[in-house]
Amino acid sequence: MLLGSIEAGGTKFICSVGDERLKIINQTRIETTTPEVTLSQVINYFSQFPELASVSIASFGPLNLDHHSDQFGAITNTPKLGWQGVNMFKLIRDALAVPVSITSDVNGSALGESYLLHQNGIEHQSLVYITVGTGIGAGIVINDHIFGLNGHPELGHIKVVRHSGDGDFHGTCPFHDDCLEGLAAGPSFKARTNTPGERIPHTDPIWQRIAFYLAQAAVTTTLMIHPDKIVFGGSVINDDLIQMIRREYQTLMNGYVEAKSLVDYLSVSCAHDNNSATIGNLILATDN
Amino acid sequence: MLLGSIEAGGTKFICSVGDERLKIINQTRIETTTPEVTLSQVINYFSQFPELASVSIASFGPLNLDHHSDQFGAITNTPKLGWQGVNMFKLIRDALAVPVSITSDVNGSALGESYLLHQNGIEHQSLVYITVGTGIGAGIVINDHIFGLNGHPELGHIKVVRHSGDGDFHGTCPFHDDCLEGLAAGPSFKARTNTPGERIPHTDPIWQRIAFYLAQAAVTTTLMIHPDKIVFGGSVINDDLIQMIRREYQTLMNGYVEAKSLVDYLSVSCAHDNNSATIGNLILATDN
Repeated sequence: MLLGSIEAGGTKFICSVGDERLKIINQTRIETTTPEVTLSQVINYFSQFPELASVSIASFGPLNLDHHSDQFGAITNTPKLGWQGVNMFKLIRDALAVPVSITSDVNGSALGESYLLHQNGIEHQSLVYITVGTGIGAGIVINDHIFGLNGHPELGHIKVVRHSGDGDFHGTCPFHDDCLEGLAAGPSFKARTNTPGERIPHTDPIWQRIAFYLAQAAVTTTLMIHPDKIVFGGSVINDDLIQMIRREYQTLMNGYVEAKSLVDYLSVSCAHDNNSATIGNLILATDN
Repeated sequence: MLLGSIEAGGTKFICSVGDERLKIINQTRIETTTPEVTLSQVINYFSQFPELASVSIASFGPLNLDHHSDQFGAITNTPKLGWQGVNMFKLIRDALAVPVSITSDVNGSALGESYLLHQNGIEHQSLVYITVGTGIGAGIVINDHIFGLNGHPELGHIKVVRHSGDGDFHGTCPFHDDCLEGLAAGPSFKARTNTPGERIPHTDPIWQRIAFYLAQAAVTTTLMIHPDKIVFGGSVINDDLIQMIRREYQTLMNGYVEAKSLVDYLSVSCAHDNNSATIGNLILATDN
């Protein structure tokens, strides 16, 4: 039995085929262009595997994940041109004629991160995974299941207190300007400095501001749901930044809720090759 | 079979005895002074009812609700003198020799609010109750059960963006100065104006600021867990304020996540005589 994983991102789709032991057997990368072109390439890829039993999609969003809605699976308010309203869940299910499930990209990663931590002997019942890349999102996993009521978390769009060093920086979120995502996601580096974040040395004070914003997200997560662990991942996160986030978290929390060990509580993704969403997908595909 | 409810607040303890149909048969009010005096009065009250089968406590906090801790049930970082470290859960269980459970005051109210909404025919699977009084807290109910991982929500202590009209108001939270609670709970009215909130006309611009802060709490709640309903209660909440909160919520959310009906989604407590915590307690006591 083969399982399919689609990690649908704003710049690329990673399509993988794996087995029940979550071993990845085959993988391809498809560029994200128009829904027609990209999705037909995705369907062609999986059509090569006649033993494919089930597929799970972890997609960029926001997604309609309301099971009572006839638009379940559709992409909703995306700023990504041409993709708003697209229901790849239905399109792929109809084309491949196998059971298909869909969740947010971050939910998929969160499930994969939780699995990888268990594999590494790090016990936990609950985990919140916060990804910081082109956007900022979160996924909640409780007892090996994705937690969600009427939708996946949209942690990127919470309001945050501005860092005094950020002056009148406008923020980059097309919906809210200076929400968390507008102030701390990848594009905010270039908007402030005209230089992408990966080229800005970690001693630059901009990182302190990013840490201040991301620490607010972690503090809000703790105060709201008190998970066992908060894991940060995504292209913006690095070891220096996570240390700054921990310091800002301690200052902001001021001892109100104490973690036994902040190094264990606030940690960095342990996934190799960013494959946590693929692993999460293969777990979900097993359950389809 | 009689069930006991203790609603333990910072100024008063409401002790009630009810039956399995959640009918309140007897009730008394005990002033909150020292733990010794108050708790011995509480124990004396319940000792009058030999058929008492079970007691549930909904208490001010923060509380240690970690079942793995030997301090389960203890009050932790309270600014309330003399009560820090007090474990009324153990003291009352040992004195009354019946099964006792404990949760936060807001969790108890949230469970009662959810029950009362169902009684009124308002269907929902999930609800977040936000209380705004001396402090600000939240309780999450999912499928008729209190949701909590390692503790009850501490929504009062999230950071919020300041309203431009609030100048350099310091905030009243002893831990964080200008967190949500420091800027929007009852004592903030008096700290700003030297007048208690109940004497400030609803046309005063201070209410707009309070609405701006409470709307941020509602937006964060939606973005984080997407409940079916958010219910506001507590002494600061009134119908004019809830309308202002809805308007601020819409502005802040800017269409990113849309509620079918904001009037249904963000509503005011429907409990009479603030008895939602007592009802929640009686439900919990039934399960002890």
